[in-house]
Amino acid sequence: MATVPLLSDEEASAEALAVFDDIRATRGTDYVNNFWRALAHDPALLRATWERLKVVMGPGALDPLVKEMIYVAVSTANGCEYCVHSHTAAARAKGMTPAQHSEMLAVIGMAMQTNGIVTGLQVPVDDIFKA
Amino acid sequence: MATVPLLSDEEASAEALAVFDDIRATRGTDYVNNFWRALAHDPALLRATWERLKVVMGPGALDPLVKEMIYVAVSTANGCEYCVHSHTAAARAKGMTPAQHSEMLAVIGMAMQTNGIVTGLQVPVDDIFKA
Amino acid sequence: MATVPLLSDEEASAEALAVFDDIRATRGTDYVNNFWRALAHDPALLRATWERLKVVMGPGALDPLVKEMIYVAVSTANGCEYCVHSHTAAARAKGMTPAQHSEMLAVIGMAMQTNGIVTGLQVPVDDIFKA
Amino acid sequence: MATVPLLSDEEASAEALAVFDDIRATRGTDYVNNFWRALAHDPALLRATWERLKVVMGPGALDPLVKEMIYVAVSTANGCEYCVHSHTAAARAKGMTPAQHSEMLAVIGMAMQTNGIVTGLQVPVDDIFKA
Amino acid sequence: MATVPLLSDEEASAEALAVFDDIRATRGTDYVNNFWRALAHDPALLRATWERLKVVMGPGALDPLVKEMIYVAVSTANGCEYCVHSHTAAARAKGMTPAQHSEMLAVIGMAMQTNGIVTGLQVPVDDIFKA
Amino acid sequence: MATVPLLSDEEASAEALAVFDDIRATRGTDYVNNFWRALAHDPALLRATWERLKVVMGPGALDPLVKEMIYVAVSTANGCEYCVHSHTAAARAKGMTPAQHSEMLAVIGMAMQTNGIVTGLQVPVDDIFKA
Repeated sequence: MATVPLLSDEEASAEALAVFDDIRATRGTDYVNNFWRALAHDPALLRATWERLKVVMGPGALDPLVKEMIYVAVSTANGCEYCVHSHTAAARAKGMTPAQHSEMLAVIGMAMQTNGIVTGLQVPVDDIFKA
Repeated sequence: MATVPLLSDEEASAEALAVFDDIRATRGTDYVNNFWRALAHDPALLRATWERLKVVMGPGALDPLVKEMIYVAVSTANGCEYCVHSHTAAARAKGMTPAQHSEMLAVIGMAMQTNGIVTGLQVPVDDIFKA
Repeated sequence: MATVPLLSDEEASAEALAVFDDIRATRGTDYVNNFWRALAHDPALLRATWERLKVVMGPGALDPLVKEMIYVAVSTANGCEYCVHSHTAAARAKGMTPAQHSEMLAVIGMAMQTNGIVTGLQVPVDDIFKA
Repeated sequence: MATVPLLSDEEASAEALAVFDDIRATRGTDYVNNFWRALAHDPALLRATWERLKVVMGPGALDPLVKEMIYVAVSTANGCEYCVHSHTAAARAKGMTPAQHSEMLAVIGMAMQTNGIVTGLQVPVDDIFKA
Repeated sequence: MATVPLLSDEEASAEALAVFDDIRATRGTDYVNNFWRALAHDPALLRATWERLKVVMGPGALDPLVKEMIYVAVSTANGCEYCVHSHTAAARAKGMTPAQHSEMLAVIGMAMQTNGIVTGLQVPVDDIFKA
Repeated sequence: MATVPLLSDEEASAEALAVFDDIRATRGTDYVNNFWRALAHDPALLRATWERLKVVMGPGALDPLVKEMIYVAVSTANGCEYCVHSHTAAARAKGMTPAQHSEMLAVIGMAMQTNGIVTGLQVPVDDIFKA
């Protein structure tokens, strides 16, 4: 259960519906997922979040699939269940293979492990790593 | 200052030195960074960590640069200063351009932002995201 | 399911029941929420936590509603589902409006975003920010 | 040391300088802090971050000082040194008293403590907290 | 629901089954828990994780029960529901009493609390703590 | 630099000095570390934190050294530099050997690693782990 009700198309305001429409058009699907339905209580935050997401996750210097995997990595480290599920699904939709999924998990695990050991050791940053 | 002294080649045990030698040979550089010098107090942990890192970060289904960016993403979410510095340097050494660095940071920021909003809203996972 | 059973009034010890009574009297409700029922296995920890909570969240230099929003912010960053739910409910009981809820979420999202970007950039603290 | 050089006014591009100018005009100070100078390598990310920050942290349903305290709370839970320093300074500039600072820290500490205990106990969310 | 299906003995590959067999023999139980069944999609990651776990959690300079409590402490701070449940169960199986469980939770709560206050205050490390 | 000045004995109030005196007497040393000197701005928070710490970290069902290691584990997962340093020093003062330190770090690393992999996989909790 969310801390706010999820708004159906009928319950959403005109401003929120306009964002839903753009989500549908951009993604080529009629399905609007729960995150946007929860955000619909605040159409300004809904629009700002969606507009920014389109820019950040769109084509650029990084492959869209790589962006989704970075998204999953951050969401995993932050323990965000919804985000892990939704962006793992998005990565799959963009072509992530089972072998790539496994390797991503192995890298996440490796990073978590050394994050812990380095922090426990309080290793000082080498001069050669500084920009 | 670390919670243990960093061991120079002279101070390291033979077992630790053998790992240092493999790090040098694998990376084609004489430089052994502080993380390994701190770990050298426990040669078994040093070896296990290094051997696993070689496997996980080596060639596979994901590009080595992509792996480094996933590593940076996790380390950033966990706030590990050393890891952010060392793996950003590693990503650059593997070809990360300034434009790719910027996009990675934008994706990390976007993921952090929605991780926070989703968690504050406690959005339930959509059925269609479930495997 | 918790890692310990939740204790009903019948199962709780006399010391735990005394804390339940104070919770009821302080809050003006008969309902004792699950957190306290799980803590009831250790009446000393239950009492210490409740007594401290009363002091910290009570009247002072900050408005009680502001304190609840700070509590939600920390709980969100830590990904504590129970705490997000219980303190969002508490904030509402203390007068948080839907508009305030939305703004709090926007601020949490903004902070998460810049936390990530700043950490990825490892920006050094400006001298003028130091006390 | 940051993972990128901080850009001076002389080094920044025209697009980045335009954002610096708006920061100066909005804040009524000539000082542009390190975060923006690090972001200046990517003028588009610099502008998007600054424009969004102005909206989110500006006047609304919550007092600007309350917003800064929520920002500090999130940054503290995430362990972001730079963000804790810069937003504590901002909170002071917006009128946070030493007594308010102390209470905010006490609330942050209380929330962290119960976040840990609740998570260790895996307390299920009470039905009455659900929206 | 996991992001991958959990594999039954019938669905697991021969390599994965060999690890299941070792888990069963090592633990003296026929039950293989969900973590390993989810990992079974990548037999190499399954084996590497299990082999390392056996070494790290086995007999050594620290008591196996102490190791489980350290594991729970980390998992709690990271908000990993599965890990809190599985390692609390493992700690109980290794003899953790209810009184020890309660004290562990009190220490976790105390550490979380001072982690937050110290980070909010940005207290510099005393010279005498440096190795 | 802290977000507040550290108070010397001369600058501290009588209430804060009384806590400093108890810290000195309890620990059998004249040295009062920076955390308490930063907290001295709020004598009530200083006293409440110190009094609780004495109870939680004192003798009980768990060995005091075990409690310090749990404290380090949580502080490491939370990335609290000061806390890692001060409680690693405290653990050493209570007899932690280099071999125990290394094993603790290996367990922390293992827990972080599986926390990441489990969260990435979103493994559901086994029924047998539920209390």
